[in-house]
Amino acid sequence: MDGVTTGCPIGFVVENTNQHSGDYDNMRSVFRPSHADYTYTEKYGVRDHRGGGRSSARETISRVVGGAFARQALRKFGISITAYTSAVGTLSLPGLYTDYDLAVAETNAVRCPDPKMAEEMERLILDVKGSGDTVGGVVSCVIKGCPAGLGEPVFDKLHARLAYAMMGINAAKGFDYGMGFAGSERRGSEMADIFSPDADGNVTTLTNNSGGIQGGISNGEDIYFRVAFKPVATLLRELPTIDSDHRPTVLKAKGRHDPCVVPRAVPIVEAMAAMVVLDAMLLNRCARI
Amino acid sequence: MDGVTTGCPIGFVVENTNQHSGDYDNMRSVFRPSHADYTYTEKYGVRDHRGGGRSSARETISRVVGGAFARQALRKFGISITAYTSAVGTLSLPGLYTDYDLAVAETNAVRCPDPKMAEEMERLILDVKGSGDTVGGVVSCVIKGCPAGLGEPVFDKLHARLAYAMMGINAAKGFDYGMGFAGSERRGSEMADIFSPDADGNVTTLTNNSGGIQGGISNGEDIYFRVAFKPVATLLRELPTIDSDHRPTVLKAKGRHDPCVVPRAVPIVEAMAAMVVLDAMLLNRCARI
Amino acid sequence: MDGVTTGCPIGFVVENTNQHSGDYDNMRSVFRPSHADYTYTEKYGVRDHRGGGRSSARETISRVVGGAFARQALRKFGISITAYTSAVGTLSLPGLYTDYDLAVAETNAVRCPDPKMAEEMERLILDVKGSGDTVGGVVSCVIKGCPAGLGEPVFDKLHARLAYAMMGINAAKGFDYGMGFAGSERRGSEMADIFSPDADGNVTTLTNNSGGIQGGISNGEDIYFRVAFKPVATLLRELPTIDSDHRPTVLKAKGRHDPCVVPRAVPIVEAMAAMVVLDAMLLNRCARI
Amino acid sequence: MDGVTTGCPIGFVVENTNQHSGDYDNMRSVFRPSHADYTYTEKYGVRDHRGGGRSSARETISRVVGGAFARQALRKFGISITAYTSAVGTLSLPGLYTDYDLAVAETNAVRCPDPKMAEEMERLILDVKGSGDTVGGVVSCVIKGCPAGLGEPVFDKLHARLAYAMMGINAAKGFDYGMGFAGSERRGSEMADIFSPDADGNVTTLTNNSGGIQGGISNGEDIYFRVAFKPVATLLRELPTIDSDHRPTVLKAKGRHDPCVVPRAVPIVEAMAAMVVLDAMLLNRCARI
Repeated sequence: MDGVTTGCPIGFVVENTNQHSGDYDNMRSVFRPSHADYTYTEKYGVRDHRGGGRSSARETISRVVGGAFARQALRKFGISITAYTSAVGTLSLPGLYTDYDLAVAETNAVRCPDPKMAEEMERLILDVKGSGDTVGGVVSCVIKGCPAGLGEPVFDKLHARLAYAMMGINAAKGFDYGMGFAGSERRGSEMADIFSPDADGNVTTLTNNSGGIQGGISNGEDIYFRVAFKPVATLLRELPTIDSDHRPTVLKAKGRHDPCVVPRAVPIVEAMAAMVVLDAMLLNRCARI
Repeated sequence: MDGVTTGCPIGFVVENTNQHSGDYDNMRSVFRPSHADYTYTEKYGVRDHRGGGRSSARETISRVVGGAFARQALRKFGISITAYTSAVGTLSLPGLYTDYDLAVAETNAVRCPDPKMAEEMERLILDVKGSGDTVGGVVSCVIKGCPAGLGEPVFDKLHARLAYAMMGINAAKGFDYGMGFAGSERRGSEMADIFSPDADGNVTTLTNNSGGIQGGISNGEDIYFRVAFKPVATLLRELPTIDSDHRPTVLKAKGRHDPCVVPRAVPIVEAMAAMVVLDAMLLNRCARI
Repeated sequence: MDGVTTGCPIGFVVENTNQHSGDYDNMRSVFRPSHADYTYTEKYGVRDHRGGGRSSARETISRVVGGAFARQALRKFGISITAYTSAVGTLSLPGLYTDYDLAVAETNAVRCPDPKMAEEMERLILDVKGSGDTVGGVVSCVIKGCPAGLGEPVFDKLHARLAYAMMGINAAKGFDYGMGFAGSERRGSEMADIFSPDADGNVTTLTNNSGGIQGGISNGEDIYFRVAFKPVATLLRELPTIDSDHRPTVLKAKGRHDPCVVPRAVPIVEAMAAMVVLDAMLLNRCARI
Repeated sequence: MDGVTTGCPIGFVVENTNQHSGDYDNMRSVFRPSHADYTYTEKYGVRDHRGGGRSSARETISRVVGGAFARQALRKFGISITAYTSAVGTLSLPGLYTDYDLAVAETNAVRCPDPKMAEEMERLILDVKGSGDTVGGVVSCVIKGCPAGLGEPVFDKLHARLAYAMMGINAAKGFDYGMGFAGSERRGSEMADIFSPDADGNVTTLTNNSGGIQGGISNGEDIYFRVAFKPVATLLRELPTIDSDHRPTVLKAKGRHDPCVVPRAVPIVEAMAAMVVLDAMLLNRCARI
């Protein structure tokens, strides 16, 4: 009302003005391999084949809207969140987020901050698409400006909430933060983030192998993490499969299925991260009485 | 009562009969680098330095007890959960869980199912310990016998609950399931798990790249995942750090700090997985009215 | 899809085609006494004066829709829920729900199962309306066919969930179940519901002073309860009050404010009860492993 | 640690040094009428007859401890909570909390603030006890010093949380707040709490029929409410009942069963109210970003 929220839940409807439900007609009673078709049917006894129902990433539009509100709020606290495509198939950026100008990511279709790598990724995706195939990849994300103290010490560790949020995005298969899986190969002496207090009593660390979270609670450094996405299950080529009576058949999907969801996942990762951080900010107001 | 639970919460006390609180005296006002010492203090204004308070993995004893009850219940449903050490530092098992006799894991101190690799891992950990250092690693886990239909389709995807649970274990830095990060490099056509119904109408898949979960819901195949652990932050060697007044100092920890937590994390991973799966089993009873 | 739910959340929009937002113009910066106008402003700093925002009972339309779905599900289990107006002002039905033909309630405007009392209530409400005033009352409700075992033993006692649900209805001021406040005046020997097992081993009770719940858990008898509603705060007569700058003023509301909400609360009470009971039914599926 | 909480959950064990489990031996396979014996058995298939398990009000000791911590915190905010016995059987205090010196309540065994009425109540309870019977009653409570803005506008209305908390106390049968059930008999014009701003801009009301909550949110006035308790079901006289095989039998309870729980419920009501209000205080810190 008058440009401000009133404390009410914020409702909205996003109309899909470009739906092609007919593209799904041949999936009505056929299960796509490695897709939710079979598991939804096992769970509920029915399944909405038109567009995939909730198993479609269309569902994430509401998350992106929610994230947009969260990011407005975070901006007041000086917190910003930026995600980008760091790998498509075996094409993988070698560096950390600190090695790139992340603003470049939004200037190309694959949302990669390295222009040369972006070109290669685009070419790979077109190749893959040409063969009716799909390819996976990785989204990386950094949260800057987070104060120390966010996150809870046991089950609701800040990174546990982030992992939960990210693994709730369609096609996500993995999550790590800070040095993550690579860090598990290293020694404690290599990984120790030595404190570096300045004259004003602000505490920073010389390195940030921890990824901005220690013991589940933010320490004021940048929080960075990765999310792995599998290749999309819906292929525009023939695949042997079964129908809903479990009889063998062959399916060739029609329609506009993405050859690679990774660039589209970038704003979803940002949105989910924003909601997690804002929740933690508000919850932390109650850490002391 | 009379050997059966009554529906009441189950209470228990585990007395630590071997505590050495004095070992922590020199940490009272000094923050260990990459440890929760600093972040707890920032969050709460105080910190229990004796044993690390809740940031100590001692806290996980209650999880292991809870998991033991959950595993008893899961056994009734024919579900079993087995975790093992799959990497210590750069020593990493090359195969999947299907390549090893997992029963071997409990026969050696590092809980690795490959006896030769187990020896190497033990040697590495002793080396690391000798130098007052620590090393990270990876725990892998497989859940067998899970029926199709477990997990919720949007935020409470079964793998999101698993990721949340695993990332709530001390020192966990990463999670992936099925082909995970490695699978993000591959094509959809390589990853498709083709259905293979048998004569009785049971549906299995020829491969299991999905890791037993599709669209967030179990499909009846084995569920397998990995958890990455960082090297322990508490080193038995001198490290430059700061005290609670943010003045530079040097800390050398005393006491029985582990050079590698990975083997000890194995039963914690199993316990957390058991509780997630049992929750999903019970919740799924309400999937249809 | 095809007439059945798919497991998705059920979305709907109810368009208010008969809104008179202009009726609220003179309340924009004036607080109605005993209304949420002041408290919402204190909490949020802003308030939607047009129709009262969420403090309006319009908000309950979504509850009635939700209740309609719950009641369909409950019907499968043989559970039915019937509420009715048992008091308007000092006009109060003397008997319990067993003393009336509850089907009569839906045949008159005040939803009272006693036709003669219904007439008196209607007359009273018209009188009150004529004087620009409002009047409160009581809704009574009975849940029939509930199996034994619903409800949790400590905080989520079945009657605690019912009380919580009922007190979340606009203008509700009180809740009691079984013999309720009246029963608090009596002796244990008068209130004991003596068991009466039949030849088939079914257990019923000779009386039902408990109101179908013992120790927070349903016992298979009828569950009955009352909800007290205050008179509506918005009066169609002049009242001294203050504006948003806390200066004295006089307000006379315009528009279609109800002189008595009680008859309109009847379906809301039924809907909320239906959702509570269905939740308890589903939760109880997990009482034993 | 050092006299302050550390942010950890606070654990404690209260040892019952005066248990007489043997008193319950004759209830092992017999159901007390109007007690949880039957419903627990129906729900769980087993029941702990020794002391009644969780259906015993012994369970509330943990609530009283929790409330003691909450009250310490509330004291910092200037909020105090006082409950007292306002009725035993048909002996009922005629006035509101404002008519009595509530400090008197703790000076007599029945916790009634009117010394003369306290004597009558004590005599009544002794009479009832002498006849092996029990009697119910009412606890009233007032919360003073609550700021405006506590409570959520729809389902978590402050009074809905209070009702839920109170109805979770053993033997509670009813709850109302402000003028409650009595107010449902009155006109809106009688009930309107007219605002009375002072020169400093503080807003109070001339009357407080609302009971300190409007639209589910506190308005800064005293919050007052009543909780009705049934007479205890366990009688020290013979009652016809059934055993666990549903065969008729006769039960005469032994042991120290209370003839009237109302005075003992007073600190439980205070404790539960304290936890509800502290939760609302903390939650309200997030009402605005």
